[in-house]
Amino acid sequence: MSIRIGILGYGNLGRGVECAVKQNADMELTAVFTRRNPETVNILTKTASVCSVSDIADWKDKIDVLILCGGSATDLPVQTPEYAKLFNVVDSFDTHARIPEHFANVDSAAKEGGNVGIISVGWDPGMFSLNRMYANAILPEGKDYTFWGKGVSQGHSDAIRRIKGVKNAKQYTIPVEAALEAARSGENPELTTRQKHTRECFVVLEEGADAAKVEQEIVTMPNYFADYDTTVHFISEEELLANHSGIPHGGFVLRSGVTGWEKENKHVIEYSLKLDSNPEFTSSVILAYARAAYRLAKEGQSGCKTVFDIAPAYLSAKSGEELRARLL
Amino acid sequence: MSIRIGILGYGNLGRGVECAVKQNADMELTAVFTRRNPETVNILTKTASVCSVSDIADWKDKIDVLILCGGSATDLPVQTPEYAKLFNVVDSFDTHARIPEHFANVDSAAKEGGNVGIISVGWDPGMFSLNRMYANAILPEGKDYTFWGKGVSQGHSDAIRRIKGVKNAKQYTIPVEAALEAARSGENPELTTRQKHTRECFVVLEEGADAAKVEQEIVTMPNYFADYDTTVHFISEEELLANHSGIPHGGFVLRSGVTGWEKENKHVIEYSLKLDSNPEFTSSVILAYARAAYRLAKEGQSGCKTVFDIAPAYLSAKSGEELRARLL
Repeated sequence: MSIRIGILGYGNLGRGVECAVKQNADMELTAVFTRRNPETVNILTKTASVCSVSDIADWKDKIDVLILCGGSATDLPVQTPEYAKLFNVVDSFDTHARIPEHFANVDSAAKEGGNVGIISVGWDPGMFSLNRMYANAILPEGKDYTFWGKGVSQGHSDAIRRIKGVKNAKQYTIPVEAALEAARSGENPELTTRQKHTRECFVVLEEGADAAKVEQEIVTMPNYFADYDTTVHFISEEELLANHSGIPHGGFVLRSGVTGWEKENKHVIEYSLKLDSNPEFTSSVILAYARAAYRLAKEGQSGCKTVFDIAPAYLSAKSGEELRARLL
Repeated sequence: MSIRIGILGYGNLGRGVECAVKQNADMELTAVFTRRNPETVNILTKTASVCSVSDIADWKDKIDVLILCGGSATDLPVQTPEYAKLFNVVDSFDTHARIPEHFANVDSAAKEGGNVGIISVGWDPGMFSLNRMYANAILPEGKDYTFWGKGVSQGHSDAIRRIKGVKNAKQYTIPVEAALEAARSGENPELTTRQKHTRECFVVLEEGADAAKVEQEIVTMPNYFADYDTTVHFISEEELLANHSGIPHGGFVLRSGVTGWEKENKHVIEYSLKLDSNPEFTSSVILAYARAAYRLAKEGQSGCKTVFDIAPAYLSAKSGEELRARLL
């Protein structure tokens, strides 16, 4: 029998999960739950239902894992604990500083419901965290580096769009090659914020807006741009739609450390991602962990888990024998 | 209390484990077991014993995890099952084709002894396998690529040393940059053996040996060199010792795959290692898994495990709370 997947929230991430289900033969999409009027939501999967989130409790025995596709700011802190009482759930909660609190809330709710809840799944947090953790366990004496990009930062794009005179905008975060090379050298350099990333902005102005003033407002914006070397390009709306409507992202996690009786040998562990679609890749990671949630629950486990707590084999549709014979 | 480590076999790997223990505050080296006369073996750790392997059974309750540092060809297939009856064990068995058989042997021995045996730990197999497995679970539709180097291949160096007229030799396996770039492109190219790696040999001749003949014998050697573009440099023994006595290695594991309703988006996951010392890095991975073996055994588990079966958090000396707060 297939693993029956439910999706709560049909934005970029929800659609990504829907697409990823199609690539996993042991899964099927059962229902998409929305806060909108279900009749206005058109999904791609003909065999799945679209339902109001207010009816979700009726699906308790018809869904094996519910994927929560809301935002980390206000949706997930409420939704993940709430639905972990009813379903095995997976979310991509990414407010790093609030993870301990979110973990505690989901843990008690999931235990109450006898379900498994896996939080902060994706690539950052998620695969990046995992690689950082493995690398730290292997090289106890060393230094971590994380670089993001080249890719679209939704938060920075939004910040530009809020400036008066800006009609539309897209911001790319770009790792600085020289800084990456310095991290790879094994010399454990200290790198400043400005040395590690640059920011490139493509901005469409409202009619009659003052370009120089908008540019000045962008490059001096605290937290978002002031600490970076930022380039601003003014382009037409047509050009923005034609060349900048994708959501690519990626990045690099490195650990550089030493071994040997006198710490005489250097080692560099590097993990990197180059993604055409940030939400679709995140969705693909989420689905692998949905498989794990399903299996762990079948084993009788409950409570909150993260990528650190789950043995890799649980993510794969292949058996232990197959994995050992083909991938070890 | 510290995790008490025993080492069986004091070659490059055994010495690497000894050095790595010093970097892990929750571990101590208790004893090194050798097939040689213990009086002839000088170890670096003043507080550890050097003992004959024939006395190893006496240490059953004094060692928490025994690290098996023998070779995969003849030592480990015998030693790992034998000692898994007495101790929790970790090995770096790397004959990929024989892993299923080795797993079965260690599994029954470890279960008989009520111990945990973790096999094929290191980087290949080990961290490379793990990254391949994660990447396959995340991107079910895609293609895997593995590149080795730049680094010393012991097997190829040995093969050269067996040629008549060769006094000493070191062989480097080198990934071809153009092939790496092709794999990173996301175009899923088919790459031949010759396209992926080149081989560079540094050879010291015996007095009076025929260089042209030796070179011809190397580059045409079946399996080892015939399928590669191979460069041979003849150098003096002094130069070999001065510039080629290290054991660096490393490599790249990539998976390139697609997502999206029409498979329209490409993604590349890449993991790479750049290692000054192959045995010391392998030892560092082994010790992280020794910590896992110890903890799993404390939980009452037994039998054979691989890197696929062990939740990442077991490898770290940090608590779950710390890991979530600092590394997730």
